[in-house]
Amino acid sequence: MLQLYIGNKNYSSWSMRPWVLLRQAGIAFEEVPVRFDSFDANSQFKRQLKAVTPVAKVPVLVDGDITVWDSLAIAEYLAEQYPDKHLWPQDKAARARARSVVAEMHSGFSALRSHCGMNIEARLPEVGEIVWRDQPAVRADVQRLVEMWSELLDQHGGPMLFGQFSIADAFYAPVCMRLATFALPVPEHITAYVQRVQQLPGVKAWIDGALAEQDFVPFDEPYRARRG
Amino acid sequence: MLQLYIGNKNYSSWSMRPWVLLRQAGIAFEEVPVRFDSFDANSQFKRQLKAVTPVAKVPVLVDGDITVWDSLAIAEYLAEQYPDKHLWPQDKAARARARSVVAEMHSGFSALRSHCGMNIEARLPEVGEIVWRDQPAVRADVQRLVEMWSELLDQHGGPMLFGQFSIADAFYAPVCMRLATFALPVPEHITAYVQRVQQLPGVKAWIDGALAEQDFVPFDEPYRARRG
Repeated sequence: MLQLYIGNKNYSSWSMRPWVLLRQAGIAFEEVPVRFDSFDANSQFKRQLKAVTPVAKVPVLVDGDITVWDSLAIAEYLAEQYPDKHLWPQDKAARARARSVVAEMHSGFSALRSHCGMNIEARLPEVGEIVWRDQPAVRADVQRLVEMWSELLDQHGGPMLFGQFSIADAFYAPVCMRLATFALPVPEHITAYVQRVQQLPGVKAWIDGALAEQDFVPFDEPYRARRG
Repeated sequence: MLQLYIGNKNYSSWSMRPWVLLRQAGIAFEEVPVRFDSFDANSQFKRQLKAVTPVAKVPVLVDGDITVWDSLAIAEYLAEQYPDKHLWPQDKAARARARSVVAEMHSGFSALRSHCGMNIEARLPEVGEIVWRDQPAVRADVQRLVEMWSELLDQHGGPMLFGQFSIADAFYAPVCMRLATFALPVPEHITAYVQRVQQLPGVKAWIDGALAEQDFVPFDEPYRARRG
């Protein structure tokens, strides 16, 4: 069976993407959780992953003797292996656009990612207000998201970015979680999309897992001294 | 015909990847150069690209009414459109590995990228010596490259990373240019791979274009006051 190595569900946005994709598409897999203890070379986290992949990062997909690392390589691998699941949109132009926006997420949105790290269980609206006030690059990232999602939802008629659920929604699911945690101001139709994503069974299952962890990893908590 | 929007050949490492891929695979295309004047919102560069893509970055591929941006989305689009060109390795396990190392390049090697920007015409061995001495993260990036390339060249027997030329070589071609410009210390078999990449007709054509530009873009020149 496929094995997916993941970090903490509460914090690991990159792990969330292929996990949600597999779960939402109904592809059976075994999850292998690797707790974030530290990212030092001799941490338990790095040592456990180094046995599987040279980069020692999550997520990693193991399919028999094939090992795929990086969320985007995993997504393409799965799209190719499970063509009947239509993980990318079937229309050629839509698929090209989906690959563009997914690649944009893969290498971009760095201000949002660094100032508003994924932290599913936390509610940090005041932090979000300050970040929004002080960080123009975060506002620019969110403006681009709103523009992108509005155009796609409008063009494909929803409920997901390309009509039906696709890799694109899996890639933006952690962004939806950040918008919610930090209560960043977005138009109503964007909030409605965020809520629809959160209600997808695959996303809901990840959120439930994150809430059940009850873990607190200080280096992923720039805004809290403790849980709750 | 396909159109590829690119930045300055001397500096634009992301543009180089799909350009080399198209040229080396013998896929006809028209190049649309967009000079780096500035990255301000109202620069000529941004205005010209904003008419083609919402992100206003190079590279952009236009195929009739389909627009694809981001180097990796372009590579996947081309691999799908031209299956007979075998842009990815044909073997499933090799293809999974190729996607992993390409995705790794797409979102990683940030220390090497920020300290040793691509600058094909420049020769900066002394800068390279200082960077190497002072920047452990650059040394770690190069160590990972050496490990990756050594393993792949060994496993597939060369001359390219996966035997024949593939998207992986196109993605690492700008890294080869950086290693040469900054004369970073790597083992002999890695230097030999760098030289083989530089001698690929598609890469040679790009280098010739870069040398012919004779342009000087100050914000891409942290180490030089002028050319020559």
